[in-house]
Amino acid sequence: MTGTSGPAREPGDLGIDDLPVRDELRGKTPYGAPQLDVPVQLNTNENPYPLPEALVERIAERVREAARGLNRYPDRDAVELRTELAAYLSRTGGHPLTTAHVWAANGSNEVIQQLLQTFGGPGRTAIGFEPSYSMHHLIARGTGTGWLSGPRGEDFTIDVTAAVAAITAHRPDVVFITSPNNPTGTAVDAETVLALYEAAQAARPSLVVVDEAYVEFSHRPSLLPLIEGRPRLVVSRTMSKAFGAAGLRLGYLAAHPAVVDAVQLVRLPYHLSAVTQATALAALEHTDTLLGYVETLKAERDRLVGELRALGYEVTDSDANFVQFGRFEDSHAAWRWILDRGVLVRDNGVPGRLRVTAGTPSENDAFLDAVRELKKEQSA
Amino acid sequence: MTGTSGPAREPGDLGIDDLPVRDELRGKTPYGAPQLDVPVQLNTNENPYPLPEALVERIAERVREAARGLNRYPDRDAVELRTELAAYLSRTGGHPLTTAHVWAANGSNEVIQQLLQTFGGPGRTAIGFEPSYSMHHLIARGTGTGWLSGPRGEDFTIDVTAAVAAITAHRPDVVFITSPNNPTGTAVDAETVLALYEAAQAARPSLVVVDEAYVEFSHRPSLLPLIEGRPRLVVSRTMSKAFGAAGLRLGYLAAHPAVVDAVQLVRLPYHLSAVTQATALAALEHTDTLLGYVETLKAERDRLVGELRALGYEVTDSDANFVQFGRFEDSHAAWRWILDRGVLVRDNGVPGRLRVTAGTPSENDAFLDAVRELKKEQSA
Repeated sequence: MTGTSGPAREPGDLGIDDLPVRDELRGKTPYGAPQLDVPVQLNTNENPYPLPEALVERIAERVREAARGLNRYPDRDAVELRTELAAYLSRTGGHPLTTAHVWAANGSNEVIQQLLQTFGGPGRTAIGFEPSYSMHHLIARGTGTGWLSGPRGEDFTIDVTAAVAAITAHRPDVVFITSPNNPTGTAVDAETVLALYEAAQAARPSLVVVDEAYVEFSHRPSLLPLIEGRPRLVVSRTMSKAFGAAGLRLGYLAAHPAVVDAVQLVRLPYHLSAVTQATALAALEHTDTLLGYVETLKAERDRLVGELRALGYEVTDSDANFVQFGRFEDSHAAWRWILDRGVLVRDNGVPGRLRVTAGTPSENDAFLDAVRELKKEQSA
Repeated sequence: MTGTSGPAREPGDLGIDDLPVRDELRGKTPYGAPQLDVPVQLNTNENPYPLPEALVERIAERVREAARGLNRYPDRDAVELRTELAAYLSRTGGHPLTTAHVWAANGSNEVIQQLLQTFGGPGRTAIGFEPSYSMHHLIARGTGTGWLSGPRGEDFTIDVTAAVAAITAHRPDVVFITSPNNPTGTAVDAETVLALYEAAQAARPSLVVVDEAYVEFSHRPSLLPLIEGRPRLVVSRTMSKAFGAAGLRLGYLAAHPAVVDAVQLVRLPYHLSAVTQATALAALEHTDTLLGYVETLKAERDRLVGELRALGYEVTDSDANFVQFGRFEDSHAAWRWILDRGVLVRDNGVPGRLRVTAGTPSENDAFLDAVRELKKEQSA
């Protein structure tokens, strides 16, 4: 949780607030879940399955090849990678795409940062429907974009009437729709996205970003086909979750080619290293195996929802690889109680709720044992 | 040179200017040298020596190991990598440093972007002494930081009196000093840096960034020891040039630990992938071999300077792995003439000048043959 690392500071030594940092950063702490050494880590929505050994070897092989040319800059436009990502989306997203529709960066966070540098920034605003992925708000701050917190219903779905009213009233330049939503797991249907897109366009020509980081785990199809005929609708994706490659930091987007051209005005040149491109290309060769793990995780996610409900917990419907559950009078105390049993889940600050990532069957068993005991403790 | 890629656009199809991009981006083109397929590429200051095969194997080995844990997020604070970078700087930079003094990101461009997001941004300004590395200006634009173009003397050195006057008049929040300077090759002495730092602090508590991307090629020692007792002085570095790893995208900085803490307020979480960290750590194991290539390149750089002067060209003193030469009545025509002989150099827009990267001896011979002919042609 702390930004400091290395040796301890001397008392009285200089700190952040002694430096001329921007006012809006004063008193803030860096984003990030606690990195604790715990047997069962179900707190950051990572895929619990290591890459298959054949893929590990293929990565080593492709990176060895890339390393032989490492003295040269990488392909600045990452054409081969974008072509393979477009092929993957065309095959699985229900909509044919070409290289020109796809852009990639170091994690979907960098994709979002580039979008906000291009379409947001000083004097502009972005809206998200909260609770949602808090990096949208933080990247807005980092790019000088004003932030508007839009509403969600009691059940954590987006209430179309309230959301349209917020867009109409505030006329944001960028609208974030996260589907499935993090940390609630809630998917958004196409009609809602269309209603919000229309409302946003009526207010001003604004960009609508559908963040589909977890869509491969959803019961519903991707919203990707909606980009057809809607040049200001962007779908962002990541290889961190379904591809089991959180350590790779590879995010991407699909949109009208003009959007891809536009983000290149702000992208740092050669932003994607040759080793990142090589590793991602290797992983894309093994898509079918990796999507097999996704099916296992969907079944485990559904098992978590079912068992948590059977235990009497209140569980939000989930289309992601995690489950929001509660309610707790003191969610931090419940988080601590589960942690003391060797299972790390996430307290995202949603009142009375915690979030657990679907792990392997045995990890999920360990989690369920812990919350079963917790329920007994609390009923006692 | 173009931001478009993939299939050709239909005439009348939507372009960037039909999208709600920020006004200051309209009509702009993405940064980047032309990527042309030419036998001798001396245009982007790359190291011409591929990594030694033993290092290529070590990279494959370390990445294979990292790939086995790729389903997990990377070390968010890159502690092992920062520790090894600190050890490298302590050994070669004339000043002892710890992990807490060092920060790393995807290329020194991302380091600079993080510094400007923290210490620049909307309502603030940065100054550079131009001609200099144009990404400083472009990243300022991308982060909403105002840009001030400071002066250089006729010989491309920083004129201390004029530079101090500019700082005193404009009171910038961030001051860039590039040493050795790109594209001129000019090193800056410690006295100049100190005078500019003092002037900057007298105006307001501002950040001074010394960009040492090319310092390993310099006749002068690093300016790194100046950070001692100067918490607002930052030195930025890269593994792209001296380490022969432009494809890796690994930049870093050394500064007071409070600066390292401060940039963590804006860094995207897990910005450095596990494969990038593994590859950089492998390269750092082979520092001595790689610095051997640097000695060869320094000798070749000195040869280029000598031979160009012997041919009658005007050559700027160089402490980098490239050489600025001229003068040409029409530098673009000269660039084209050299390109037609299979040698790609860089036209950075400095009137009457071109820039050539020191390549291998045979690449430099090819370049010298071309400019020898050009000289004859122009004298004829």
